[in-house]
Amino acid sequence: MGFEVKAMTDHDVTTPIDDLEAVEPDVRRPGSDPGPAACCVPVSRPPGYLDNKQAHLRRLRRIEGQTRGLQRMIENDEYCIDVLTQISAVTSALKSVSLLLLEEHLNHCVAHAVQNGGEEADAKLAEANAAIARLLRS
Amino acid sequence: MGFEVKAMTDHDVTTPIDDLEAVEPDVRRPGSDPGPAACCVPVSRPPGYLDNKQAHLRRLRRIEGQTRGLQRMIENDEYCIDVLTQISAVTSALKSVSLLLLEEHLNHCVAHAVQNGGEEADAKLAEANAAIARLLRS
Amino acid sequence: MGFEVKAMTDHDVTTPIDDLEAVEPDVRRPGSDPGPAACCVPVSRPPGYLDNKQAHLRRLRRIEGQTRGLQRMIENDEYCIDVLTQISAVTSALKSVSLLLLEEHLNHCVAHAVQNGGEEADAKLAEANAAIARLLRS
Amino acid sequence: MGFEVKAMTDHDVTTPIDDLEAVEPDVRRPGSDPGPAACCVPVSRPPGYLDNKQAHLRRLRRIEGQTRGLQRMIENDEYCIDVLTQISAVTSALKSVSLLLLEEHLNHCVAHAVQNGGEEADAKLAEANAAIARLLRS
Repeated sequence: MGFEVKAMTDHDVTTPIDDLEAVEPDVRRPGSDPGPAACCVPVSRPPGYLDNKQAHLRRLRRIEGQTRGLQRMIENDEYCIDVLTQISAVTSALKSVSLLLLEEHLNHCVAHAVQNGGEEADAKLAEANAAIARLLRS
Repeated sequence: MGFEVKAMTDHDVTTPIDDLEAVEPDVRRPGSDPGPAACCVPVSRPPGYLDNKQAHLRRLRRIEGQTRGLQRMIENDEYCIDVLTQISAVTSALKSVSLLLLEEHLNHCVAHAVQNGGEEADAKLAEANAAIARLLRS
Repeated sequence: MGFEVKAMTDHDVTTPIDDLEAVEPDVRRPGSDPGPAACCVPVSRPPGYLDNKQAHLRRLRRIEGQTRGLQRMIENDEYCIDVLTQISAVTSALKSVSLLLLEEHLNHCVAHAVQNGGEEADAKLAEANAAIARLLRS
Repeated sequence: MGFEVKAMTDHDVTTPIDDLEAVEPDVRRPGSDPGPAACCVPVSRPPGYLDNKQAHLRRLRRIEGQTRGLQRMIENDEYCIDVLTQISAVTSALKSVSLLLLEEHLNHCVAHAVQNGGEEADAKLAEANAAIARLLRS
């Protein structure tokens, strides 16, 4: 599938990133005790997206390539509508990454805090809700 | 506060619903033990939005009035751009309601399930993540 | 086709409004001379959505019914996630209406002004662009 | 958290792109006759965004830098919520670019086609409406 980085040039901007579902699932079970190293605060502990880190980096490298492709389209005076179509594709790809990161954050960081309870649980829930509102309004 | 229903006619479609923050906060503390009646599954238990039920109903009645106002605008052949502006206002109001409902759901239903752990926790987290994705794509 | 108003109760909130494409197309040809009565300014002239007025009213009545259905769901303490799913459906339906109105506005009102040229053309284009930005950010 | 503005490299991912309004305005007057070289079809003619080409390239280079900053955040195991905040910023920046490109396309390419009339006008309007729908749904 199209995540072969070596076969991907910057110019390959039109391939849709619809294969996010095909990525290997998170091996940690959400909601179950994520263990001492699985919560993303304090910073010395790994973040919720740890198990999918390489997959996220591949996606972001691809998105970076798409933004370079957009610059090349503008430099080459390509047609406005084609540029707009490509921007829609990049926006959708970013949205997919944000949904995956948010899911991992809820399943690990927030779930871990809620299991421990107390003020940390309240704070993590409030923070996640604020992030969801920002995503919905961006 | 602009939620005086009696003073609100259907035609009052242009007043922005920006006062959602002014609504009385949820009295239940998120993340803390919501007690036996505070989780929204099974159906016999009250939903996460219980404490703010009347506020949500006021908001939705107002949105219903806005949709009637939209029909009146179309019937009266009002200017396209004015209709579009009003649709943007209704969409924003719906988005605000959905963010409030989602927040209460995470703080109560999901938090409760996560504290109990097991498969129910996993299911509630997966369900919430799917709902967030639907909101972001609607 | 789900637009039979007589067969539609308020409770029919879950039926998707995906049949917008099935609506009869605008009979006026976009871009061609819309004639003296086809531009939406001044107000004494009919708006760009004139030919589809009844279809828009049917859609908005349906959306109004959906907002009443939402209130009934909240009154009945229905499950948060089901309410959120329904809000996503209403938001999508409103987005479809706004895209149709915008299309008619561009095809008739803006096109007419551009054909006439001058400051009115500039003003109509600027106004349409502002409306698109509002839609994209609502 | 490496957000020192004075050390602004690609890593400076949090600076908001709010300066879009400050960019020099398009010197061509929308709606007025854009002249023989101002329509974006056929390809041998410059696109609608020609006058702002350098400004768009600057914005896209900045967005490319932001996507590299995102990768660095993931590589450094930075906090999920901080990554999500940054993704919201990139999405908003892309949305701003798309609105500017769309505006220039309507003001030049579409306006030019509409002034010429005929099937080309219809085609350009239909194409623009489809692009707006894609943006609103991405």
